[in-house]
Amino acid sequence: MKFCSQCGSSAVTLSIPKGDDRPRHLCGSCGTIYYINPRVIVGVLPYVGDKVMLCKRAIQPRLGLWTLPAGFMENGESSEEGALRESWEEARASIRVDDLYSVYDIPHINQVYMLYRGELTDMNFGPGPESLEVELFREEEIPWKEIAFPIMQRTLEHYFEDTRLGLYQLHRGVINRKL
Amino acid sequence: MKFCSQCGSSAVTLSIPKGDDRPRHLCGSCGTIYYINPRVIVGVLPYVGDKVMLCKRAIQPRLGLWTLPAGFMENGESSEEGALRESWEEARASIRVDDLYSVYDIPHINQVYMLYRGELTDMNFGPGPESLEVELFREEEIPWKEIAFPIMQRTLEHYFEDTRLGLYQLHRGVINRKL
Repeated sequence: MKFCSQCGSSAVTLSIPKGDDRPRHLCGSCGTIYYINPRVIVGVLPYVGDKVMLCKRAIQPRLGLWTLPAGFMENGESSEEGALRESWEEARASIRVDDLYSVYDIPHINQVYMLYRGELTDMNFGPGPESLEVELFREEEIPWKEIAFPIMQRTLEHYFEDTRLGLYQLHRGVINRKL
Repeated sequence: MKFCSQCGSSAVTLSIPKGDDRPRHLCGSCGTIYYINPRVIVGVLPYVGDKVMLCKRAIQPRLGLWTLPAGFMENGESSEEGALRESWEEARASIRVDDLYSVYDIPHINQVYMLYRGELTDMNFGPGPESLEVELFREEEIPWKEIAFPIMQRTLEHYFEDTRLGLYQLHRGVINRKL
């Protein structure tokens, strides 16, 4: 941040506001304080029978790798609405949501993932503009070496484990930077 | 947003970027697109024995009303770390977290609440700078008419109901604007 978006001044510094305990972007001219907070990524683990749906990414990062449909939650929507919107945008998938399934924090990139579990209501899916392919996979067919993000791999592992147990429950945790 | 925080230009408009489907703040000079997303509020329902802890707010909004300790999640922390930080800042409370307990979307104010359930580990609590008082309440002592936010009231109701049932489980939902 180089200029104040309220007054246009270039007197923006990174410093600790009075009464605060961490640095923020502060405008020395008009006094505006800018708070930057984590963002929420919402998505779905879509399933039908013994298969789950994955999308091959048409965009960076991780272009060409497989992921569950997910993206940034938008203002004005609930997390479930956002998850269904992303499933439509990326996979043209229509889904009946069962429940919230996976909540993971990724502190080093300031993200919180909220993934729902949901059943496909029809088979008229296909790639949206951000996907190269959309396919259904049985557990033994999953391209485990080509999964785009650790959060997606963990959620898929939980899903197949829970399927064996016959009990789906919320999974949560923290994914830290690889050391 | 009146000025571009990257280049200082005043040519910032609210319009739909190419390939997008909703208006964003766009700089007509340098092309920067600004995304504004929902924020996460993290907090704790602190309990000890048959009592829960509430804080009387020393700040607006809802100054003088009672709430569970909670606040905006910060970059670089997990939601659980943020919840414990807020409990310390607002109530000087030390807590052992049991589990994620309450996840609520509030779309009309672009917020997602993530509240944990946790036991106080000592009784050395007291008001931080954003609280007037910090007190423990049995269910029948809760000042139900003076609870600051609907999300907090619902979470407290779930807690006492679950306590009667002897089973705590995640509660989630959406809180919409009062019509």
